Amino acid sequence: MGLAVVVTLEDGRNKDGQAARPAAASSANAPSANALDTLLALVAADFAAVDHEIRTRMVSEVALIPELAGHIIASGGKRLRPVLLLAAARMCGYGGGIRHIRLAACVEFIHTATLLHDDVVDESALRRGKATANVVWGNQASVLVGDFLFTRSFQIMTEDGSLKVLSILCEAAAVIAEGEVMQLTTANNLATTEESYLKVIAAKTAALFAAATRVGAVVADRDEREEAALQAYGDNLGIAFQLVDDALDYQADEKTLGKSVGDDFREGKITLPVVLAFARADAEEQAFWRRCMEDREQTEDDLVRATTLMARHGTLAETIARARHYGDLARAALQIFPDSAYRRALEGIIDFCIERAY
Amino acid sequence: MGLAVVVTLEDGRNKDGQAARPAAASSANAPSANALDTLLALVAADFAAVDHEIRTRMVSEVALIPELAGHIIASGGKRLRPVLLLAAARMCGYGGGIRHIRLAACVEFIHTATLLHDDVVDESALRRGKATANVVWGNQASVLVGDFLFTRSFQIMTEDGSLKVLSILCEAAAVIAEGEVMQLTTANNLATTEESYLKVIAAKTAALFAAATRVGAVVADRDEREEAALQAYGDNLGIAFQLVDDALDYQADEKTLGKSVGDDFREGKITLPVVLAFARADAEEQAFWRRCMEDREQTEDDLVRATTLMARHGTLAETIARARHYGDLARAALQIFPDSAYRRALEGIIDFCIERAY
Repeated sequence: MGLAVVVTLEDGRNKDGQAARPAAASSANAPSANALDTLLALVAADFAAVDHEIRTRMVSEVALIPELAGHIIASGGKRLRPVLLLAAARMCGYGGGIRHIRLAACVEFIHTATLLHDDVVDESALRRGKATANVVWGNQASVLVGDFLFTRSFQIMTEDGSLKVLSILCEAAAVIAEGEVMQLTTANNLATTEESYLKVIAAKTAALFAAATRVGAVVADRDEREEAALQAYGDNLGIAFQLVDDALDYQADEKTLGKSVGDDFREGKITLPVVLAFARADAEEQAFWRRCMEDREQTEDDLVRATTLMARHGTLAETIARARHYGDLARAALQIFPDSAYRRALEGIIDFCIERAY
Repeated sequence: MGLAVVVTLEDGRNKDGQAARPAAASSANAPSANALDTLLALVAADFAAVDHEIRTRMVSEVALIPELAGHIIASGGKRLRPVLLLAAARMCGYGGGIRHIRLAACVEFIHTATLLHDDVVDESALRRGKATANVVWGNQASVLVGDFLFTRSFQIMTEDGSLKVLSILCEAAAVIAEGEVMQLTTANNLATTEESYLKVIAAKTAALFAAATRVGAVVADRDEREEAALQAYGDNLGIAFQLVDDALDYQADEKTLGKSVGDDFREGKITLPVVLAFARADAEEQAFWRRCMEDREQTEDDLVRATTLMARHGTLAETIARARHYGDLARAALQIFPDSAYRRALEGIIDFCIERAY
């Protein structure tokens, strides 16, 4: 198969001569806590180019657009999705151009647009430890700048010019929107099953991970088998990522989480920890969940009570166990690729996503 | 040039054998009040196929999506944009397939998505004489179903497979979003100039008209000159349409308008009738406008006062006169095409858009 491991890092500078993100660990065998840094080091030059592309493409003569978009884009997100695309492309031997850079920026724009709309929908006040755009500029601006970033992402895809890529990313964007609407219909509804919950997170989160990693194979012109493998990797990783996110909403401290702990609880969002806790609840506990999640009548102490019930029924641990299972599936999907620093880094990201929970 | 006037109406049925919209007038020379009916009669079979395409493509297993989208799509909009695309394509001799049907549906999806988001942004309660989706299903669902329709429109374009069409429609969608944000920054700001106002309406309204008519030439494989002419037609028609819309907001009766009269006033939206009235205001009148539009302190009688001031300074009549000017430009743009029933119907639409004001 002859995958070339393309080392783009060299002197740690990107093509514009700017210092790239320093590598925290140089070996792909570093502990998983550093797995993100390892991956970032591997794609550092590409990553800097993506950053540049993002900043260039969010420019508009309407000053509010780069201002608001810059607020959320600069707020220190992990840029996991574009980084996954870059690593997948490089693992697949892509080396001939800047398509991966553009498309990684495009994926980040789609993600950012959904975040802006999510924060309006969820009435969130805090994201990544900063006030959300809807709090600073109002819901109206968040909706419209989200629309702008959406349309900009489609423009970038069109410039790329591959109908195959367009169809993968457009499909993902439609599935995400569908997943978000589906989530709205499961909110405050304790009849939501684990199956429905999984459907929601597969759509709203995993679809973009999967599209990003699949596109990595597509730009490198790999065959259908490798495309499918990278799609499966992204899909399972995305599900694991969201399961952990939903557990963290009940157990992280706010500094680590970068958003308000208990947000899901206050909104009555039905995530797996709640689905499982409700399934195992006695009559009195069921009444508690109904009052908090369906009627949304909550007191200050109710979040503590909720986490206590989750601990009693082991639902957070079980949510993490499920995440681990999907992580294993993601790892298995990568095994058709020969060993490389990129493959090891993509494997490391699985552990990174899961071990955030500790 | 040899443009074939393709008459698709025949027996008034579309390809599925369903009865098409009955023709209200059979001659393209009917008075402009009937110009829309004339145009609809000319493209009746195509129109029915677009309707079918719209209904088919808004389906989702998430029931809320077709329910909410159906509410706004079925609410009796004129479907002006898809009809313009159909007529432009037919005028250009397109006859070989269903690309114009799909792309007309796509244009209507983009339009519907922006309406859903507009109503959230404007906090509107009434559209086309019916409660808005945000009132019935909440802002959250309107934002997300709008996103779904946006992404669906991009999927349809991708299926069409023409990068040229994709680039025209993606560009239009981005310009619309930019225009909406721009409008947000001019709201409640009486320093808004006529030039800024025109920029906003060119972006938020005319861009989609222009993309729709241009795409008509593109699917028919006409040369750049005809593409540019149809783009100019759509652009100027769109500006005329919005100018009239903004005048109607102060003078229509609600039944005709299908939305609440005075909505723009209550939101402090700075449209041309206000820009002109403020420019001609004496000190006392300026204070009135500042209180109503900038401070948004309004009493029941203020809307009456506003229209009285507009009458005194002739700003509604002048807004319509401007619309007439853009209408003339739209008409001039069509003159490179040989006379045909389609061209005459497209000319008739100009008068229809302007004479709504009476």
